[in-house]
Amino acid sequence: MRQSHLFTKTQKEAPANEVAKNAQLLIQAGYIYKNMAGAYSFLPLGLRVLENINTIIREGMDAIGGQELHMPSLQEDRLWKLSDRWDEDKVDVWFKTELQAGGTVGLAWTHEEVITDLMRQYVSSYKDLPLFAYQIQTKFRNEMRAKSGIMRTREFLMKDMYSFCANQEQHDAFYESAAVAYMKIFNRLGIGDETYKTFASGGAFTKFSHEFQTLAEAGEDVVYVNKEKGIAVNEEVLEETDLSELGVTKDELTKYKSIEVGNIFSLGTKFSESIGLEVNNEHGEKQPVIMGSYGIGPARAMGTIVDLLSDDKGIVWPAAVAPYQLHLVGLNGDDSEIKDWTDGVYAALKARGVSVLYDDREARPGEKFADSDLLGMPYRVVMSKKGKEAGTFEVVTRATGEVRNLTEEKLFADFSS
Amino acid sequence: MRQSHLFTKTQKEAPANEVAKNAQLLIQAGYIYKNMAGAYSFLPLGLRVLENINTIIREGMDAIGGQELHMPSLQEDRLWKLSDRWDEDKVDVWFKTELQAGGTVGLAWTHEEVITDLMRQYVSSYKDLPLFAYQIQTKFRNEMRAKSGIMRTREFLMKDMYSFCANQEQHDAFYESAAVAYMKIFNRLGIGDETYKTFASGGAFTKFSHEFQTLAEAGEDVVYVNKEKGIAVNEEVLEETDLSELGVTKDELTKYKSIEVGNIFSLGTKFSESIGLEVNNEHGEKQPVIMGSYGIGPARAMGTIVDLLSDDKGIVWPAAVAPYQLHLVGLNGDDSEIKDWTDGVYAALKARGVSVLYDDREARPGEKFADSDLLGMPYRVVMSKKGKEAGTFEVVTRATGEVRNLTEEKLFADFSS
Repeated sequence: MRQSHLFTKTQKEAPANEVAKNAQLLIQAGYIYKNMAGAYSFLPLGLRVLENINTIIREGMDAIGGQELHMPSLQEDRLWKLSDRWDEDKVDVWFKTELQAGGTVGLAWTHEEVITDLMRQYVSSYKDLPLFAYQIQTKFRNEMRAKSGIMRTREFLMKDMYSFCANQEQHDAFYESAAVAYMKIFNRLGIGDETYKTFASGGAFTKFSHEFQTLAEAGEDVVYVNKEKGIAVNEEVLEETDLSELGVTKDELTKYKSIEVGNIFSLGTKFSESIGLEVNNEHGEKQPVIMGSYGIGPARAMGTIVDLLSDDKGIVWPAAVAPYQLHLVGLNGDDSEIKDWTDGVYAALKARGVSVLYDDREARPGEKFADSDLLGMPYRVVMSKKGKEAGTFEVVTRATGEVRNLTEEKLFADFSS
Repeated sequence: MRQSHLFTKTQKEAPANEVAKNAQLLIQAGYIYKNMAGAYSFLPLGLRVLENINTIIREGMDAIGGQELHMPSLQEDRLWKLSDRWDEDKVDVWFKTELQAGGTVGLAWTHEEVITDLMRQYVSSYKDLPLFAYQIQTKFRNEMRAKSGIMRTREFLMKDMYSFCANQEQHDAFYESAAVAYMKIFNRLGIGDETYKTFASGGAFTKFSHEFQTLAEAGEDVVYVNKEKGIAVNEEVLEETDLSELGVTKDELTKYKSIEVGNIFSLGTKFSESIGLEVNNEHGEKQPVIMGSYGIGPARAMGTIVDLLSDDKGIVWPAAVAPYQLHLVGLNGDDSEIKDWTDGVYAALKARGVSVLYDDREARPGEKFADSDLLGMPYRVVMSKKGKEAGTFEVVTRATGEVRNLTEEKLFADFSS
């Protein structure tokens, strides 16, 4: 992509009306745009990051047998009354609106009821189970306060998976495989080292649920971690549980601020009983299906990456989510010989399938370097008269500042896909 | 994909509560699920079709310089009051709802106001233009009557592109390139032969806009077409325009029912003036930006394909949008030698990157054939004891019924990607 063609531009200063670092940097760099409190646009570079994150999540879900679908936001009251989650007294994040044709509809803030009802069409025997279905879909939540930039918004993309099992063993096995898949996803996203599977309270059907908490100063949450033992618990569990069964004592846990980047939850038969999803078991008897739900917010993951990995110069994207791998920064563009050479290298990289952002703008070198640091591609190559004369390419790694001098052949080989 | 793993199932009968052929077939085959009047789920096979359509649209938009972004649904009143499109008297499809934090928000039914305001951040000089931005995003419209299956729903995916130009020549050139891109898209979708760029009334800034109308018995619209001359007009134009300037007379036009699968519209400076999007021109003078908007509904395109191309046995997917290219139908599954052979061919096809749906279910041959016809993959290969003995594969083309006998080598070669 030629940067001169990109409609977004960086801003000199971080926006004054944002306190969260993720929103400050993402807006300043032109990745996102704030439309209102709690609702953001994802601009071309930002959408590429979000889609890269979605792909990593999707691959993780597909690998454990997930089948992707897409359910609507508009919801009639029927199912939600069955589960007693329609009243605003019970659920305070509903957006509701009136159909012109008559009747109230809500905007789905989650989809347990919806998918349970849908599965009634397709599931009738234990032989149809287990099955795992997920979507990456927009949720609406009428938050009293939108906050933390793109971390807690009123409209956001969510990966929500639901599991349907015939017995507890099937459920437990899948629940464990989902937990493993989640850690793989956070590792691929570049935040695995700071992310802990955290014990949280479980509800009626199970002692614990699990949150995935990324330790970060910008976090809204608090967790208690023993890094050596790899054990983390949230505040509820700390207060209410005999920690000895987890193999730690209170004294061994350290308090951290954290961001909840995912959660997994055993639902038991709460929804299958209220909505009426039953199967015939091996003995021909009806029994309710055992369910679980598994969430990750892709935009929240994006915000977490920015909060966690950025430095004082700007964003630092891990290679797996970066909008482009290589930032080719052209200098001496007024010298047509240099410009032609730079254009040629860009064309050659593109022809080899290299994911490259090419700063071909007319701008001062200092501005280009500052923008390049702010934008945060994993690698930068500066194309200048001096470099051309030297005959090698100086490749700077954004995260570490490491500098390598590569021949053209080596450059092409290293970055070709 | 093994069909035994797919959670959806076909139904024996078309649903009684749907009159539109597209919804009847898509529900019966398990591609979609009706959640409420005007809101459908896209199930695994249906989502694959929709994503294939999105990819074709996306490639078409990227090819003419489109930059993809994603804007939110939630909308404060401010911008829409500037353009006088907030009041329900003016726009009767708003869904509106209250923020807990105070204030009314609407759900965007289009995004002209939103993107015009967004561009104020990035556009200041004629040198920043032209630029073209699009999204594939969910729209909400409070239709009094949802109808025609997935053709007119209350919540639907829309590709909406917006163009921003510095002068009329730039705009006209892009408008023409968008029209060409649209026809390419409809050709790739398999409905190009029946789709006409249709003259429609233009509004304040231009004499004509254009609809893309696909001739179909199931259509809600009416167009007047001269197929020889390749001219089509809608009812307004027929009544109000001197047709001689289009080179036809009323007598030369034939009336058809049709489906509007796309539209392109010159907006002039309507939104740039009301929202305040100006650039400095070559002489340093401020002038409003000239805009256009360009829409395609991916789900409506999907419904059109079904309405147009299905036969009395079921759906007939064009190869470009089919969820899978090849339907491998395994018979004699109770014979372990045949089952192993069939499993092996499936594995070999997958290893070669062939997009294949494998009916590995325990079911009667008649049921499998009926399901295969209903599901509508472009090609079917039946794997049976008889076939194994013959040593060749019988490949049936769904659209034409053509039968070819291929060797294993030829089968792999023909379908490998």
